[in-house]
Amino acid sequence: MNIHCLLFDDYEALDLMGPVELLHHVPGAVLHYHSQHGGRVRSTQGFSIDTQALSDLPAGSVLLLPGGMGTRQKVHDADFLHHLAAWVAQAEACLSVCTGSALLAATGCLDGRAATSNKRAFEWVKSVNPKVHWQAIARWVQDGKFYTSSGISAGMDMTLGFIAQKKGLPLAEEIAAYTEYLWQQDPGLDPFAALYGYKRESP
Amino acid sequence: MNIHCLLFDDYEALDLMGPVELLHHVPGAVLHYHSQHGGRVRSTQGFSIDTQALSDLPAGSVLLLPGGMGTRQKVHDADFLHHLAAWVAQAEACLSVCTGSALLAATGCLDGRAATSNKRAFEWVKSVNPKVHWQAIARWVQDGKFYTSSGISAGMDMTLGFIAQKKGLPLAEEIAAYTEYLWQQDPGLDPFAALYGYKRESP
Repeated sequence: MNIHCLLFDDYEALDLMGPVELLHHVPGAVLHYHSQHGGRVRSTQGFSIDTQALSDLPAGSVLLLPGGMGTRQKVHDADFLHHLAAWVAQAEACLSVCTGSALLAATGCLDGRAATSNKRAFEWVKSVNPKVHWQAIARWVQDGKFYTSSGISAGMDMTLGFIAQKKGLPLAEEIAAYTEYLWQQDPGLDPFAALYGYKRESP
Repeated sequence: MNIHCLLFDDYEALDLMGPVELLHHVPGAVLHYHSQHGGRVRSTQGFSIDTQALSDLPAGSVLLLPGGMGTRQKVHDADFLHHLAAWVAQAEACLSVCTGSALLAATGCLDGRAATSNKRAFEWVKSVNPKVHWQAIARWVQDGKFYTSSGISAGMDMTLGFIAQKKGLPLAEEIAAYTEYLWQQDPGLDPFAALYGYKRESP
């Protein structure tokens, strides 16, 4: 399993590192750190990572997209979005955390699909592309090859859900135990949505 | 609040990045990334971060120590431990995650104090220094200025506990909500200890 992390300046640290930690424990997983042009990329938390330019994704690749304040510019970066659309098309699975789903949405690849994002930034994310079926109350959402999570920490729950689906629940549970992570396994349980006024409609 | 992260090759990504994510949301917090000699430091998960050499810690500093496989060598590195002992003495608070507490223990600074560590590696950590009052069943332990957490993900619960103690519970809860983190607030609740046979003795 080749996992290609796509970074950009001002991404949110845990959006990336939570999934990275968990995916690294999948036997045979290899993590690659990329940006559009390569070079050092700086997180909002002030550290810089070496990245390699991303060209084509090999067959069977997983694409991992963090969110963060950097997405606010990237959704208007036509050249970046043009390349992102190609990488998404090549990927076997796409995982986004937090406002990373705004980048996916901006390419059009989520049109007509269900997806979620950070609840604090949800109205902005929705405004990026209203053709997506945005789910306000969800820890994470899967639709086809797209796995989108709610804010920051939710990426870890989604990643374990992804691992469970691809490699079996026992491995996901083993990785949760190894990392001493209290995994919330239910993608529909979202205790944070109500903080921003998102509530299920009465039947 | 100046937070000095002390890295070394083969540290565990989330040990560092979980606390970094949460501490970054403390108003006025500034994160610094160090290693003993500076330069690029590589995590077990394969990415490299630029670090600066650590000399003296300014007054009021917080020292943050991740764990990981790299600790297995560092506990035998007399020069590193000599410097670590000085940084610990200078720090206002020391936070360690996972086997980072083995490094603290190897300096002698935890002698006679209560501390915890990763449960999977617990017997090794205990062997590093039996003069520490190792707590087998704990999400995290505070003793004086030392905050030590259980494995990998437990560092996030500890960090929010540290923030609550230093800056108030409302801020810790606000940061948990912002990062959509399901905070386990009870330091004594450790669902992973029993996996390795650590059980409370009957009264």
